Amino acid sequence: MINKLSFVSDYMEGAHPQILKRLTETNMVKSSGYGLDEYSESAKEKIRNACSVPEADIFFLAGGTQANAVMIDALLRPYQGVISARTGHINVHEAGAIEAGGHKVLALPHQDGKITADSIQSCIDDYWRDDNHEHMVMPGMVYISHPTEYGSLYSLDELSRISRTCRKNNIPLYLDGARLAYALACPENDVSLPDIGRLCDAFYIGGTKCGALFGEAVVIPRHDYIPHLFTIIKQHGALLAKGRIAAIQFDTLFTDNLYTEIGKNAIETAGRIRAALTDRGYKLTLQSPTNQIFITFKKEVAESLSEKIEMGFIENIDSDHTVMRIATSWATQKEDVDALINIL
Amino acid sequence: MINKLSFVSDYMEGAHPQILKRLTETNMVKSSGYGLDEYSESAKEKIRNACSVPEADIFFLAGGTQANAVMIDALLRPYQGVISARTGHINVHEAGAIEAGGHKVLALPHQDGKITADSIQSCIDDYWRDDNHEHMVMPGMVYISHPTEYGSLYSLDELSRISRTCRKNNIPLYLDGARLAYALACPENDVSLPDIGRLCDAFYIGGTKCGALFGEAVVIPRHDYIPHLFTIIKQHGALLAKGRIAAIQFDTLFTDNLYTEIGKNAIETAGRIRAALTDRGYKLTLQSPTNQIFITFKKEVAESLSEKIEMGFIENIDSDHTVMRIATSWATQKEDVDALINIL
Amino acid sequence: MINKLSFVSDYMEGAHPQILKRLTETNMVKSSGYGLDEYSESAKEKIRNACSVPEADIFFLAGGTQANAVMIDALLRPYQGVISARTGHINVHEAGAIEAGGHKVLALPHQDGKITADSIQSCIDDYWRDDNHEHMVMPGMVYISHPTEYGSLYSLDELSRISRTCRKNNIPLYLDGARLAYALACPENDVSLPDIGRLCDAFYIGGTKCGALFGEAVVIPRHDYIPHLFTIIKQHGALLAKGRIAAIQFDTLFTDNLYTEIGKNAIETAGRIRAALTDRGYKLTLQSPTNQIFITFKKEVAESLSEKIEMGFIENIDSDHTVMRIATSWATQKEDVDALINIL
Amino acid sequence: MINKLSFVSDYMEGAHPQILKRLTETNMVKSSGYGLDEYSESAKEKIRNACSVPEADIFFLAGGTQANAVMIDALLRPYQGVISARTGHINVHEAGAIEAGGHKVLALPHQDGKITADSIQSCIDDYWRDDNHEHMVMPGMVYISHPTEYGSLYSLDELSRISRTCRKNNIPLYLDGARLAYALACPENDVSLPDIGRLCDAFYIGGTKCGALFGEAVVIPRHDYIPHLFTIIKQHGALLAKGRIAAIQFDTLFTDNLYTEIGKNAIETAGRIRAALTDRGYKLTLQSPTNQIFITFKKEVAESLSEKIEMGFIENIDSDHTVMRIATSWATQKEDVDALINIL
Repeated sequence: MINKLSFVSDYMEGAHPQILKRLTETNMVKSSGYGLDEYSESAKEKIRNACSVPEADIFFLAGGTQANAVMIDALLRPYQGVISARTGHINVHEAGAIEAGGHKVLALPHQDGKITADSIQSCIDDYWRDDNHEHMVMPGMVYISHPTEYGSLYSLDELSRISRTCRKNNIPLYLDGARLAYALACPENDVSLPDIGRLCDAFYIGGTKCGALFGEAVVIPRHDYIPHLFTIIKQHGALLAKGRIAAIQFDTLFTDNLYTEIGKNAIETAGRIRAALTDRGYKLTLQSPTNQIFITFKKEVAESLSEKIEMGFIENIDSDHTVMRIATSWATQKEDVDALINIL
Repeated sequence: MINKLSFVSDYMEGAHPQILKRLTETNMVKSSGYGLDEYSESAKEKIRNACSVPEADIFFLAGGTQANAVMIDALLRPYQGVISARTGHINVHEAGAIEAGGHKVLALPHQDGKITADSIQSCIDDYWRDDNHEHMVMPGMVYISHPTEYGSLYSLDELSRISRTCRKNNIPLYLDGARLAYALACPENDVSLPDIGRLCDAFYIGGTKCGALFGEAVVIPRHDYIPHLFTIIKQHGALLAKGRIAAIQFDTLFTDNLYTEIGKNAIETAGRIRAALTDRGYKLTLQSPTNQIFITFKKEVAESLSEKIEMGFIENIDSDHTVMRIATSWATQKEDVDALINIL
Repeated sequence: MINKLSFVSDYMEGAHPQILKRLTETNMVKSSGYGLDEYSESAKEKIRNACSVPEADIFFLAGGTQANAVMIDALLRPYQGVISARTGHINVHEAGAIEAGGHKVLALPHQDGKITADSIQSCIDDYWRDDNHEHMVMPGMVYISHPTEYGSLYSLDELSRISRTCRKNNIPLYLDGARLAYALACPENDVSLPDIGRLCDAFYIGGTKCGALFGEAVVIPRHDYIPHLFTIIKQHGALLAKGRIAAIQFDTLFTDNLYTEIGKNAIETAGRIRAALTDRGYKLTLQSPTNQIFITFKKEVAESLSEKIEMGFIENIDSDHTVMRIATSWATQKEDVDALINIL
Repeated sequence: MINKLSFVSDYMEGAHPQILKRLTETNMVKSSGYGLDEYSESAKEKIRNACSVPEADIFFLAGGTQANAVMIDALLRPYQGVISARTGHINVHEAGAIEAGGHKVLALPHQDGKITADSIQSCIDDYWRDDNHEHMVMPGMVYISHPTEYGSLYSLDELSRISRTCRKNNIPLYLDGARLAYALACPENDVSLPDIGRLCDAFYIGGTKCGALFGEAVVIPRHDYIPHLFTIIKQHGALLAKGRIAAIQFDTLFTDNLYTEIGKNAIETAGRIRAALTDRGYKLTLQSPTNQIFITFKKEVAESLSEKIEMGFIENIDSDHTVMRIATSWATQKEDVDALINIL
């Protein structure tokens, strides 16, 4: 329906064709509701294997803000807050969903969207050392995303140090994997699904932006780490009646390594675009290796390009310069990339 | 995956085949996210026409508890509660989602799942007449469902009187249409979509139980009656990134009257089962004309039947008797009904 | 400021004179804020002794609704509700404070304001036996008051059975003692402070209605049973900066048995009024032995009496009859009782 | 009870003696509960006169965090947040009370604890200009305190500009006056009570830190600007049963200009201490003219002084330096100041 070249986001198409095929094949089979069906069991088992978390509790939710709000509510006690990068999705783009659940986001400075083990430890130390800390919000968990909002990646070393810091301080580490497939497909990435399963206390594997019609798989490696999570999900209005619809999608994504393959097209096309931008002298706002490219344009250049190319608007940094985002995805077409590069 | 005859619920299959066909056909078309796409516009326009609400604001959400929680939060002020039948879904089977949003459910006695204009007026009068009403929860809206939890139907006269009562008292009327297609397909029903559009201040048209993979269409007849509802939805984690996926389903359901046709199979098969039960001397718990049949069994009969037929368990009414539910749907097969009747 | 005889409530005067004396004597002594002062320590120690709860955590809050809301929030997990009599203060007269904290009140039928161990057990059993209980609100604690809203008293046997039921089911028992002094002063009462300390998991000793300017003493017999309760209190806006002001009042009330003495005047004067009412053929709505008398009047009688006596309005039971409440207190004057009886 | 010289806070004593005298004189007079008494009417009328807000709604609450939480909940819609200095009490020292009410604190950079009309306008502009603002928290009101957390004062010009900015953007301005008496007593202050009444949409006049046993007077200049605020207060557990106890205190504070006089001793003694500190070469952390003095000490100096003087700990700014606070109050004794200066 969109006529211009569009690189606005990574959720502009439907689903990987294999997913629609499976949905169609299984359509008239009867199954139980609320995730108590065999498709859900199968998908969970495949995810447990892929992440090396044989005991994990797994739930399929509809979207990322929902997954974050449910899990943060489930992991925190009412007097606790969640540590996040100031740029974290939960701090900026979830319309206050975390606060609506009663929790403060304890926002830390970031580097390219990332926070560090040291800054987390400082935040915790500052709290406990303060004479008045009982009048303050206790840091109760850590939220990170991989890739981050800015498309950057945690190294395995960075993630390991954050995990150690969390465990030393006895607070859970939660990872938002809305675009996890694009991290996994990235040559620069050295964090595997089993690493995440080992280092995090909860995380979600993104479907919506990674080839599904919708859906995120929430994984809690330790069984019953969060008692009554089923009811917590229901209370948040997040329980899918036909759980199988999400499950069949994840079952497909975790068959024949589709989830680790599906991001490759996005990374390759983003690489070509990045190279073309650099060649032509455009200024990348920051170095990020995944499927999002942030470019600082002169305003008139941004306006001129916008007539032919739909990009995402990020911010005006001054009266002359604008940051825009180009996003590729599993569905990005070679011809569109050629056309884009041509226009640039 | 289920081998026994199964009449447990009306959401055991995928979607009407036409829906999967449309999802497949449109799969690789690019569109904007968050409901700002042409499929959403088309579906909304068809619903506006079907309900004769040309100015209506419409949003597509994922499920019924979510729709109820979002809309009740959006319609009430913090010091207000929602009037509902004691048996209402929001009062019993939403895990406290309404209270989690800060609101009390003001539960009224019911008849076959229905409440009356008079009982609503009494509840409101009791509040305002009480010297201490400022210490109490103010009735702020009315929640009903059509069909009700017990499969019963409001007559147009009953609904009109409830609507008049709400408007006289200046509180909104909200209708939960999780199974609305089964009401519309029912010969006993005299409430049309335009009636609902005219008499209610907000309602949702159920998709999940009426032939969609998932999804409910929230309709607010008066434009901008609820300011910033988009953000309220986002804050509840209820905004679908690929809004089109739900929209395409509703666009299909509202093409060629599919939504008003889709329930007929359920009503016809339920009618056959009801007749067979009555013939064979089984006791219907209550008279309901839609796709849910409630039967009071002797316990040993219920147990014996359960070996061959999956039914829904409702409650033990004493040590000898059990209430069970048989649900039909758009997808119920003639052969399964034959087999069921045979077993009975 | 009120010229008519007034028996509207038991909080119409200031404080027991001994309390004002202590506040005046200690006024210019410096002390730490937030309950970390020696007056607070002294008052807590006296309450621990009076209740035989040597390890108890104790906090002084400003009012009853606040104490209930804070403690129910502190004792429940988000997916749990609180069992209460339908007539319980939390269910009727707290403006939805419990729901505002996210919790459903699971209202049980009552007898003269009381619930029973059996009805509590049934409520819990109904939940766990329901196939769909994960879609419902889990009973997470029990709320009772002593005396109840209707002035009735739990016997030690009744309270013991409720306590056993709670412990068997592993859910806490919380007792609202807004008018506890009037129970303790009542000859019919066989529940002592140490009984309450032994049988309840949390309770509050009422000050506001029992001789203090304001204040309720929340007692949690087991130390650290509720971690970080200080912060939970602060988060609810319930932490008194000058904690000593409440503490000095409780220190006075628990010196020389003042708290167990202070209610006697109320019980004696209520007894005289009750006898006079019965003598003159008035109909007591229910038999309650404490400081609240509920009378069912013919409407014209109620209106005629209201010209000379201020009573509390409870409800119209039909077009001819009205229930009114006469409340006595520690401060009720003999002459006012004489005058009241005279008018009757 | 404290033997060292103590300058820890401005709420270490009871109340101005005149307040205790009035409480004692009126103790046995009967009055209605919940603020519906003549003392409350009298106090409100005096405050209306002092602030030139003849139509104002006024409520007496118990404490500052409570007042802030109630008013911010009452003024915001669920999807809105409150703009505040990053150092604002609501952002740092209220244990997440605002977030517990569902609202994000939109924290702005500060200068000596103050924010500016320009920074407020930028925050609002940033929101509305952002393409994705419907996914973000809408700025819904402005919170300031006078004096600020750092003891600094808004000039009338600054306050006027902030007020104009709020009105231009149609969002309310709320002022936290926990220490307002100390501003009013300060020669540098040019903001009067009528200025505040004219420029703010809601504010509270602090009692707890300004000579009362407890209590804050919430003032809303426009009548019925916040419908059903009584019930909102009750729902927050913030309604005082014996409203007169707070009212009598404010009635006393607003008789014979006591409230504008009561802070003078604090300002004078703070001035003497500030001069002595400067004389002896101590480093004031920032210039603030009210009753709080922030001093940057070498750590060993802070430790040595702490043996003789109790001060408030603010923060360690590096391994060698510590910021401490000295607070004076209406009750500070000349001899204690002499002794303090002597030790310095």
